[in-house]
Amino acid sequence: MKNIKLVISYQGSAYCGWQIQPNGLTIQEVLETAIEEVTGEKIQIMGSGRTDSGVHAYGQVANFYTESRIPPERFALAINTRLPKDIRIIESEEVEKEFHSRFSAKGKAYIYKIYEGGIDSPFYFDRAFHVKNTLDWEKIQDAARYFHGEHDFKAFMASGSVVKNTVRTIEKIEFHRNNDLWEMTFKGNGFLYNMVRIMVGTLYEVGRSRRKPEEIKKLILGLDRNKAGITAPAHGLYLNEVYY
Amino acid sequence: MKNIKLVISYQGSAYCGWQIQPNGLTIQEVLETAIEEVTGEKIQIMGSGRTDSGVHAYGQVANFYTESRIPPERFALAINTRLPKDIRIIESEEVEKEFHSRFSAKGKAYIYKIYEGGIDSPFYFDRAFHVKNTLDWEKIQDAARYFHGEHDFKAFMASGSVVKNTVRTIEKIEFHRNNDLWEMTFKGNGFLYNMVRIMVGTLYEVGRSRRKPEEIKKLILGLDRNKAGITAPAHGLYLNEVYY
Repeated sequence: MKNIKLVISYQGSAYCGWQIQPNGLTIQEVLETAIEEVTGEKIQIMGSGRTDSGVHAYGQVANFYTESRIPPERFALAINTRLPKDIRIIESEEVEKEFHSRFSAKGKAYIYKIYEGGIDSPFYFDRAFHVKNTLDWEKIQDAARYFHGEHDFKAFMASGSVVKNTVRTIEKIEFHRNNDLWEMTFKGNGFLYNMVRIMVGTLYEVGRSRRKPEEIKKLILGLDRNKAGITAPAHGLYLNEVYY
Repeated sequence: MKNIKLVISYQGSAYCGWQIQPNGLTIQEVLETAIEEVTGEKIQIMGSGRTDSGVHAYGQVANFYTESRIPPERFALAINTRLPKDIRIIESEEVEKEFHSRFSAKGKAYIYKIYEGGIDSPFYFDRAFHVKNTLDWEKIQDAARYFHGEHDFKAFMASGSVVKNTVRTIEKIEFHRNNDLWEMTFKGNGFLYNMVRIMVGTLYEVGRSRRKPEEIKKLILGLDRNKAGITAPAHGLYLNEVYY
């Protein structure tokens, strides 16, 4: 029995998110079907975490157990022949039996993309959050600094989520601009449900001068989801990397 | 009667090219339907040139005549409300009656994108030519210099095309790299049918060391399509701009 780790990239627009559900096609289901075709076994994959409907991934991680004698690093190629083009395995390797893509994860990085332009782009409408008016990116970058470090991020978790420990550490927030497209990278030891999207939604309101950068500090301390900003749309979000 | 010029951006993957045809949806048809809904008139748009099935555009140009009293610069917004998200009018303006998007054009610029990577990207499979092995870009750039200037490009025109004058001037070829994605920009006073794709296909063969850069000179002089390289795939091609 081998434990195989996969690194997966996908354009999430056509799927109802990662996790298998009764109504609608999911990334997990498509992957399991492809792996079953390749191995001839009934298998179940464990993902590092769910991604919502419309969310993309450059480096989602999953693992599964198999008796197959296919060399571990050949799985990527073999599974890819059975996958639609908007999902690709970019790497496969054998890992120790105890490895679990979710519980062994030490951290994650997400990218959030914002497209600025009077008219939305035919190339980004399902790949970036479209913002008509130019945002004040200096203010946004000022505000983002308050997220750095260890905080209780309860105010930046979707209401209704049930997690006991809402303390997380943000190690890095980086900004990168390419013409009309802004990319924000968030690296941390873990993220609560919708945390990146609520942080981005709040930064977006700072960028529109509806909030002051220093407000972020108070929002974090207040622990109140209702005081924080909107949940930025799913289709701007990319799971970039999972760290072990 | 006003003559309205449109600048149009589209992701061509879902369409059977620009020009209306009996079998399959085209960009032109979708645009005409949208404009008819907005103006209430039966209209016909003139494009600066056809783009093939799968080809994209950042700045295709078209014009049409209308009696509508909608202010010319408002057409963009009005038509966009009737268009699918993969087609956007990015600009509309009134132009002189004699303006014809095709016959008034003084030049065009195309971009061709190549994605280099062992595994194709879920984000580029329909937006760039996927090349598994790294190309020799120094050789490609050496070779591209031979295309500069005025030449008879008959060898770089799809066989079967009927054009009397096959002399064109290439003003500029530029290369731009962003990680695994290469972009080549071709600017010229006009392009023959499939000319950019055959030039790229030939450069690709140079990049794989199947041809020498200096061979381009001989190929141009030979005027023989069969001696030139492959026609690079349509989905890597973008009509970037039309000059007037």
